[in-house]
Amino acid sequence: MTQFDERNITMMMDLYEMTMANGYFENGDTEELVSFDVFYRNNPDGGGFSIFAGLEQIVEYIENLHFAEDDVEYFRSLGLFSDKFLEFLKTYRFRGDVDAFPEGTIMYPGEPILTVTAPLIDAQIVETAILAQVNHQSLVATKTRRIVKAAQGRGVSDFGARRAHNMDAAVYGARAAFIGGVGSTATVLAGKQFNIPVSGTMAHSWVMYYEDEYTAFKKYAEIYPNAALFLVDTYDVMKSGVPNAIRVAKEVLEPMGKRLIGVRLDSGDLAYLSKHVRKMLDDAGLTDCKIVASNSLDEYTIGSILNQGGCIDSFGVGERLITAKSDPVFGAVYKMCEIQINGKKIPKIKISETVEKITNPGRKKVYRIYDEQGQAIADLLTRADETVDLSKPYRYVDPEKPWKNRFFENCTAKELQQPVIRGGKRVNDPVSLQEIKDFVVRQLKDEIWEEEQRFENPHKHYLDMSPAFYELKMELLAKMQES
Amino acid sequence: MTQFDERNITMMMDLYEMTMANGYFENGDTEELVSFDVFYRNNPDGGGFSIFAGLEQIVEYIENLHFAEDDVEYFRSLGLFSDKFLEFLKTYRFRGDVDAFPEGTIMYPGEPILTVTAPLIDAQIVETAILAQVNHQSLVATKTRRIVKAAQGRGVSDFGARRAHNMDAAVYGARAAFIGGVGSTATVLAGKQFNIPVSGTMAHSWVMYYEDEYTAFKKYAEIYPNAALFLVDTYDVMKSGVPNAIRVAKEVLEPMGKRLIGVRLDSGDLAYLSKHVRKMLDDAGLTDCKIVASNSLDEYTIGSILNQGGCIDSFGVGERLITAKSDPVFGAVYKMCEIQINGKKIPKIKISETVEKITNPGRKKVYRIYDEQGQAIADLLTRADETVDLSKPYRYVDPEKPWKNRFFENCTAKELQQPVIRGGKRVNDPVSLQEIKDFVVRQLKDEIWEEEQRFENPHKHYLDMSPAFYELKMELLAKMQES
Repeated sequence: MTQFDERNITMMMDLYEMTMANGYFENGDTEELVSFDVFYRNNPDGGGFSIFAGLEQIVEYIENLHFAEDDVEYFRSLGLFSDKFLEFLKTYRFRGDVDAFPEGTIMYPGEPILTVTAPLIDAQIVETAILAQVNHQSLVATKTRRIVKAAQGRGVSDFGARRAHNMDAAVYGARAAFIGGVGSTATVLAGKQFNIPVSGTMAHSWVMYYEDEYTAFKKYAEIYPNAALFLVDTYDVMKSGVPNAIRVAKEVLEPMGKRLIGVRLDSGDLAYLSKHVRKMLDDAGLTDCKIVASNSLDEYTIGSILNQGGCIDSFGVGERLITAKSDPVFGAVYKMCEIQINGKKIPKIKISETVEKITNPGRKKVYRIYDEQGQAIADLLTRADETVDLSKPYRYVDPEKPWKNRFFENCTAKELQQPVIRGGKRVNDPVSLQEIKDFVVRQLKDEIWEEEQRFENPHKHYLDMSPAFYELKMELLAKMQES
Repeated sequence: MTQFDERNITMMMDLYEMTMANGYFENGDTEELVSFDVFYRNNPDGGGFSIFAGLEQIVEYIENLHFAEDDVEYFRSLGLFSDKFLEFLKTYRFRGDVDAFPEGTIMYPGEPILTVTAPLIDAQIVETAILAQVNHQSLVATKTRRIVKAAQGRGVSDFGARRAHNMDAAVYGARAAFIGGVGSTATVLAGKQFNIPVSGTMAHSWVMYYEDEYTAFKKYAEIYPNAALFLVDTYDVMKSGVPNAIRVAKEVLEPMGKRLIGVRLDSGDLAYLSKHVRKMLDDAGLTDCKIVASNSLDEYTIGSILNQGGCIDSFGVGERLITAKSDPVFGAVYKMCEIQINGKKIPKIKISETVEKITNPGRKKVYRIYDEQGQAIADLLTRADETVDLSKPYRYVDPEKPWKNRFFENCTAKELQQPVIRGGKRVNDPVSLQEIKDFVVRQLKDEIWEEEQRFENPHKHYLDMSPAFYELKMELLAKMQES
């Protein structure tokens, strides 16, 4: 059983997908196969890469795609659709194929990260649901990776649910954040649904409810002797919060043979406070007591705190992670790249006044090219019918400098798109979230240049083209100009 | 049947709410009543007000609150909770009261827009779900109102689903956008769930699929003669798109006695293009043909297009509306304001280094104060046990200038919080979305100063205090300083 058995999200679409589907149906264009590519144009926050996330939800959505009786009646009520089409919807199931990068793949602008090949109607109606998953989860995974990088090995936990853009944003956001590198989430529903470790101790209300801070800490320690982590900023961190925490550590926990696990700072100057709190804890012999910090953190505030020598062991990150506040739109699009008329494949291109909005035509392959050290030096687009032989020097085209004669030498290549769905059914078992997370870490450690990972002016990863692919694109562009 | 019967969202919480709840349970603090206020500190985008949205979902959530068997088993698996507490959860239902502003109320920073009064455990575990609804929907409603204002009476439609932060953000975002003033949404699930008008015609894929643009438009017009609105920027707006649209209007639609309803521009310089397109349409006698524009619009781009004389009749607004891109975090918080010990009400205050983070203590009333013309001149906080008599001059305290002697004269007052839930059950029937939307419009037209509605340096709405309330706050602050 999957998440979308109970909750049918087939209607998560834009109306135009349905008016077009009905139109294709009325025109008799119901069996022709078409291909659509999902790709995006810019990495968020001016970063050097993004992380592909959301694929598992797309697979589950497509496998469960069906219109309930009341969905069909809703469409009937709009007065836009033919009775025959509405009948067709009643037994409709997705009939096509999906190929995609494995979830967690480091990805770059312009690459077809997911391709749907299906009858026209099927390919059309999945556009919005696919994009919403890719856009949301890739956004949050990519933002999270930045925050985790800034934390330089210290733990990061997702505290964002209350500021998320509603419930799914909290739950799928926690999933994406885990892929991006948080160690845990505070969001219970995400923990339950995706088996993500959950964390959380006390709010200011616990401290405010009891007659004084000492009593509040003491009562908490008595109930959770193995999980005593106190929020110390309700009244005054240094005059009251930390002294009371130390007192409870000595008077309540130590007699039980337990240790104070940590204190949490949720306001004030975290760099300044944490240094003083560290000293107070150390002076009391609580050198193993951790300091957790929260309060509108992101990669920049965390970087600044650590640069100042802030003594923080882990970070709870909320609103700026879960909304990707600094750049909250991930702009993946879904564009037709090929149609088949009577079995003949016809590549399609969308031109535009803006050069970077011109699409890459046809079904294609994407290869990641590695040097002898296993570093990813570029990605390569080829036509679907090409094979890349890297046993000898391989000439490629840099589309920004097509006049240059360039070669991959002593390189290896890995094809990035893999079959995901065939004839409406998934072809592989789900990958565990932990495996996806580990995959991200492994790529960033072993394959992706550190220069692509820095925040300031990251190195640009090249998306090169095979000569045949470049030729096809130029040919189609020329043809469009003529007409 | 409500949305949360099928989909139980009780687990939409932060773990700390549950560790605290278990702690209160273990301490025997299960029946004591407490009150929590929801309030926020800043209007998004430096605006002069916000719109309260999300209340209906909160009511449905609270009425349906219950832990399923597998929720309890999940908690058991965490090893944090006592068996007795887990048993308690199995039959748990929310036992408290909720008071809130009516949905759609124009609201200001610092006001208790929603107050929960309930046994400690009940009040604690609803924090995250309440905040996520208020924060998300108020954010989008408030952002939408800015965009609608910039459109100066022209229609605005929500096109945002694909860039929303997942499905709920699209669906509840569409709901909030309708409250904020859009006329329709493209999101089918939102249309079906909330009875919002839906709109949508064609994507670039329709135009790309057919052999040429003329054929694509012609086929669409034949199927939808009453809804012919063509996307004209797939190839070249002025050389191809608009001429083909005009040709279909003449050759296909007019012989059927139908008119071309509109053309949509989705790229390029919308101000420039729209003026030329308008002239082309007018010259062809299609003066009734509307021009719809989309493409990363917001209140600033729309304002700029209209300032340049752009001839656009309606706007499709996507990513910047549905993510509230310019300021995507609405920071409402949930703070304890009162506890009852043995029936005695004890007001609570949270102090902070930052003055504006000091909370307003105790249960309270919020009044909107109107002058003789019916304009809202300020809001007023009083203690819960006060009544405000405006039949004679009423002295109030401006908390930023408490030394001044100020009076409301010839004013009327309206209490803003209303009973919403009593003993876990809603006390009023749901208000229709259209009524909520109309309520927003009516307030902004009749009650709220235009100076508060402008984007640049809006007038600040004052939140004044009754002398008794101010005194209570000062007393508690002084007491906190001593201890």
